Amino acid sequence: MPLIFWLVPFSAALALLFAYGFFRQMMRQDEGTDMMKKIAEHVRQGASAYLRQQYKVVIVVFLIITVIFSILAYGLGVQNPWVPFAFISGGFFSGLAGFFGMKAATYASARVANACRSSLNQGLRLAFRSGAVMGLVVVGLVLVDISVWFLILNHFIPETADGWKLMTITAVMLTFGMGASTQALFARVGGGIYTKAADVGADLVGKVEAGIPEDDPRNPATIADNVGDNVGDVAGMGADLFESFAASILATALLGAAAFMGAGAEMQFNAVIAPMLIAAVGTLLSIAGVFMVRTKEGATQKQLLHALGFGVNVSAVLIVIFAFLILYYLGLPNYFGIWGSIVIGLLAGIGIGQSTEYFTASAYKPTQRIAESSKTGAATVIISGVGTGLISAAVPLGIIVVAITLAYSFATGFSFHTDYLNFGLYGIGVAAVGMLSTLGITLATDAYGPIADNAGGNAEMCGLGAEVRKRTDALDALGNTTAATGKGFAIGSAALTALALLASYFEEVRMMFVKFLDMPGELINGVPAIDAAFIDFIHHYEIHLMNPKVIVGIFLGVMSVFLFSGMTMNAVGRAAQKMVEEVRCQFRTIEGILTGEGQPDYARCVAIATKGAQKEMLLPSLVALLIPVIVGLVFGVAGITGLLVGTISSGFALAIFMANAGGAWDNAKKYVEEGHYGGKGSENHKATVIGDTVGDPFKDTSGPSLNILIKLMVMASVVTVGVAVSYSLL
Amino acid sequence: MPLIFWLVPFSAALALLFAYGFFRQMMRQDEGTDMMKKIAEHVRQGASAYLRQQYKVVIVVFLIITVIFSILAYGLGVQNPWVPFAFISGGFFSGLAGFFGMKAATYASARVANACRSSLNQGLRLAFRSGAVMGLVVVGLVLVDISVWFLILNHFIPETADGWKLMTITAVMLTFGMGASTQALFARVGGGIYTKAADVGADLVGKVEAGIPEDDPRNPATIADNVGDNVGDVAGMGADLFESFAASILATALLGAAAFMGAGAEMQFNAVIAPMLIAAVGTLLSIAGVFMVRTKEGATQKQLLHALGFGVNVSAVLIVIFAFLILYYLGLPNYFGIWGSIVIGLLAGIGIGQSTEYFTASAYKPTQRIAESSKTGAATVIISGVGTGLISAAVPLGIIVVAITLAYSFATGFSFHTDYLNFGLYGIGVAAVGMLSTLGITLATDAYGPIADNAGGNAEMCGLGAEVRKRTDALDALGNTTAATGKGFAIGSAALTALALLASYFEEVRMMFVKFLDMPGELINGVPAIDAAFIDFIHHYEIHLMNPKVIVGIFLGVMSVFLFSGMTMNAVGRAAQKMVEEVRCQFRTIEGILTGEGQPDYARCVAIATKGAQKEMLLPSLVALLIPVIVGLVFGVAGITGLLVGTISSGFALAIFMANAGGAWDNAKKYVEEGHYGGKGSENHKATVIGDTVGDPFKDTSGPSLNILIKLMVMASVVTVGVAVSYSLL
Repeated sequence: MPLIFWLVPFSAALALLFAYGFFRQMMRQDEGTDMMKKIAEHVRQGASAYLRQQYKVVIVVFLIITVIFSILAYGLGVQNPWVPFAFISGGFFSGLAGFFGMKAATYASARVANACRSSLNQGLRLAFRSGAVMGLVVVGLVLVDISVWFLILNHFIPETADGWKLMTITAVMLTFGMGASTQALFARVGGGIYTKAADVGADLVGKVEAGIPEDDPRNPATIADNVGDNVGDVAGMGADLFESFAASILATALLGAAAFMGAGAEMQFNAVIAPMLIAAVGTLLSIAGVFMVRTKEGATQKQLLHALGFGVNVSAVLIVIFAFLILYYLGLPNYFGIWGSIVIGLLAGIGIGQSTEYFTASAYKPTQRIAESSKTGAATVIISGVGTGLISAAVPLGIIVVAITLAYSFATGFSFHTDYLNFGLYGIGVAAVGMLSTLGITLATDAYGPIADNAGGNAEMCGLGAEVRKRTDALDALGNTTAATGKGFAIGSAALTALALLASYFEEVRMMFVKFLDMPGELINGVPAIDAAFIDFIHHYEIHLMNPKVIVGIFLGVMSVFLFSGMTMNAVGRAAQKMVEEVRCQFRTIEGILTGEGQPDYARCVAIATKGAQKEMLLPSLVALLIPVIVGLVFGVAGITGLLVGTISSGFALAIFMANAGGAWDNAKKYVEEGHYGGKGSENHKATVIGDTVGDPFKDTSGPSLNILIKLMVMASVVTVGVAVSYSLL
Repeated sequence: MPLIFWLVPFSAALALLFAYGFFRQMMRQDEGTDMMKKIAEHVRQGASAYLRQQYKVVIVVFLIITVIFSILAYGLGVQNPWVPFAFISGGFFSGLAGFFGMKAATYASARVANACRSSLNQGLRLAFRSGAVMGLVVVGLVLVDISVWFLILNHFIPETADGWKLMTITAVMLTFGMGASTQALFARVGGGIYTKAADVGADLVGKVEAGIPEDDPRNPATIADNVGDNVGDVAGMGADLFESFAASILATALLGAAAFMGAGAEMQFNAVIAPMLIAAVGTLLSIAGVFMVRTKEGATQKQLLHALGFGVNVSAVLIVIFAFLILYYLGLPNYFGIWGSIVIGLLAGIGIGQSTEYFTASAYKPTQRIAESSKTGAATVIISGVGTGLISAAVPLGIIVVAITLAYSFATGFSFHTDYLNFGLYGIGVAAVGMLSTLGITLATDAYGPIADNAGGNAEMCGLGAEVRKRTDALDALGNTTAATGKGFAIGSAALTALALLASYFEEVRMMFVKFLDMPGELINGVPAIDAAFIDFIHHYEIHLMNPKVIVGIFLGVMSVFLFSGMTMNAVGRAAQKMVEEVRCQFRTIEGILTGEGQPDYARCVAIATKGAQKEMLLPSLVALLIPVIVGLVFGVAGITGLLVGTISSGFALAIFMANAGGAWDNAKKYVEEGHYGGKGSENHKATVIGDTVGDPFKDTSGPSLNILIKLMVMASVVTVGVAVSYSLL
């Protein structure tokens, strides 16, 4: 193993070490008054209870899938024997990352509120570093898993002369992404349903019916609401990006093994480890970036945002430089073009974030127009939100289109000839890695949001002074901005990762084709000589658009997206309904609850949200897991490829539409609350509150769940590729 | 020309004759009181004024496109010289059909109201036969245009030995579909914006703010609202289905010419005229069906529905039998399979209609659940409507998937081998023709809806007695049901037509490829021998899913759909806003307007809706027309094919989602009004009214406009195929 590879486990260890350091540092802070401790303890217990429940379901699902994979591997022989183990390890590490991240978040909130009693700067640093625990644990554990597996497989899988060894290794490692994907499915869908059932339920009865403010301790659902922020926005988001980070690196490694198969053992090896090294260096830069986040007392919203942005931006600029050095050192023939693809990926991430901000922040026209339409009532608020959301989806789609065209072109030296196709696909993979390279710090800013939000909740419930509330509000408002751009980034990276996975699906099928159909070896060994085998491959599987199976697959992909998001949307409606009934019941039956004399039963609401989320997440999850398998069995490889393209394209668009419409409604409401168009309490405000409530499942349940769907469907297809190749019906 | 071909012009003439007969019959009826005449005259004038304005814009657009086509045909030589003329004729006939249909509808409404003063049966028959004017004019003019062009081109285009003549003829004729498509674009988008701007504007100020009922003469926007029903639901729907009917026949003719190219001149000819003959016979059966629609006095809603359904169903059953006879007579080798494809198309149409009814009628669970969610306010009404709408899109997508798989399989004798691909594509085309074959009568039931609606409006405004109102209400309620299923049918047939057009796009490119690249002739002449040329074709244009240009195209297709529907959605919001301001202004400034003493200025509202629609329809229309051309110029044939598949699949899903969500909200409101969950005037009712208002642009503007988008984008690509083939950048 060349020395430079050890950078990967080294940076993994360092990330985990710093995460532990930040965690210890945070735990040393004072948690404040007894009341603050008690509230935090409630939230912590609720979150742990939910996570335990979720892991129970996940373990059952993992057992079933592991059995299936074992049959495929040991019984039917259409899968590598290492696959079941890689699958389990992906799920285990993703679960672990979610567990640690959420622990840190739930321990942090009261401490951040308490830190805000001294100064804003202390509050910001504590909240951000607690968020960094999540960010660094995620990237650290991904890199641990990758390093360990790569070392094990490199040791055990026998050497071959023609480059098959690295193809096999990377293909097996990709299945650890499947484990992460399955874990993320339940975390995102279950967490998403939980958080919005609690939020919508709390708001509908508390804010609208009883007229008490957000986070009021008299509202029985308020603890569940705070728990929801942690299980949905921290654990769900973490699992989502764990998967993107892992899958983008692993898919790119496989694409590198395929593209440089005939270019000599060393070159192929370097192409495989290039994405790992970039991710490793990005992780080191993320750690450095975390230390750059600081602000002074009395900082404005803009200065706070700048403080966060500074750390993120410095890391991004440095990774551009370091990526070049790595690629130059590795000596890939088209290193300059590949570097271009990385930069494109980074720029695309920034572009999508900017467009999210434009369409959802109240500083810009679109959200202001939605607020303005409240003058004619809730209906026009909804109509203009939907209209704006639909239009807003066009921009990131456009960015992704430009990004994949350029990433492909850079990596192939601007040739669209089939001979260079493999390089182009590698370029797309590398762009995804580039976008996600500094995930350690971007995820820290994402996780910061719910921590600040919970700190505000804690301060509100414990009746801390106005000055403290002002500080937590400032942190919280900042969190809303980072949450919106974070969502855009999560979706954009999911789309690019899914495309990289799709490319690796093609490569896996092609390899199977070459292997099983006994194609002449010389055609695939030399890089420029894949042409003839490639044409035969296309012809054999007919993955062209005149094949009705492909068209049918694309329709089924779009169908899955609509079905899945409709299901998650209705799930929130039903679960929220139960929460509403419970809160109404408590308001009715518990004496003195609204005067503050009676004690609301927080635990009942937490239990209801937990049960609702558990029950409701099963059906959509089943859809996501089963459709690719069924389509593969009926329509074969042609149907699958169509399915995946249909899912990725329409799922991406729908996810952006939902996230942006939801974000814009949220901020339109805040814009009115700031005093525009009648301000708080006016009829216009009520209209925007309805918009905000509609937006809740849009932006926090159905939208983000689609990130998982598009990655999981491809992942499931990649892992079961042998089934579709060997047993399809049509 | 064989004798049987003359059936086409004969049935065209007969359809127009009966349309004229129904029109004369209707005009002979009494229009009722002076007040009734006056109101009807207002609506008529408003509708005519709008249509004149729309045609002005359309003429300019047609001039521009004709100039472009002339340059392509005469200057660059990449188009057939007949194309500009065929294009103009399609637009002209579509415009004519819209004009006559709307004339009939606007003359009918007061007469139907008046007929309801005598009996329900008379009202129903008159309304339905007035709707049949539209239905028969549309199918009649399509068949006139087809017959005349076929005779002309068959005469002028020189005979060739190898089947090229019919390929050329059918390719030229397809461009008349482009004319119809362009006309339909403005009719659907402009009409859709008009009708909902007026409706939303009238409701928001009239019903919600002033508390006066629907169709109240004191509301200045009420005439504009009634005009909107005519320009949106009659003229827009008519132009939409004119295009589907024409394009499905013409695309299938081209697919027939391609599939049977090597099967001998007679066989090829028969394959080309088969879709025309089926449409012709379907038209004759539609005329017969119209005469079967009658009911007795005091008929229940169910009996009324049965009366309409009887005519439609008898026509559908008979066309199954007659289609078999025609195909048997024509002696196509796989006539039994092709007949199967026709039956599949018919069944798919019925299935989509049924699913629409299930998801939107208040008799079923989904709509009842939306109504129930009004207990927790407007936000949950919207959430559950969106959730249900998204899920509901999965069913028609599934139906279309099964339909194209089976239609393809039947036509190829259940082979998915490339050798039979052309037969399979012909099967898909024939399925579309089957679905649309009895359009004469299904369109009559569609056009019946707004006529009954307007009759109700007229009765309300003129204060006719309760008995009369009850009768017009019964007719109107029936119209709501037919409108919902009609929408489902329009979308389903648009999707199937678009797929047939897509298949013909492939054939056109393949022909160009064979022609320009000088492929060996023998490879394409014998039907089973296309394989090698086909593979070369796929290879040359790389329309496979590993090509980034195809993937980029698919993303751009999804992007176009989201952009276009967001634009139309916002257009309604803006235009409605202006209407709201105008109505508020009139309520404020015209003395005694709310007591019925002052006269509202209807004309101002009509003018505002007209101007708003004209202005707002331009940008989305430009998107629809320009995107395929730009994508073709940049990404070539591969990009275009991706674009079209992305547009059709996601556009179809989004259209169904919007139509069904809108329909369900509408009926959930009506369900509450019937006395459930608190009934009219309750808070729950108000929540469902918000849902209904949100649903208005969903179901009547953005949703139906997508029908046009998916057909027009393919059509524009088909017509400019030479540009993409000859001048693409990448």
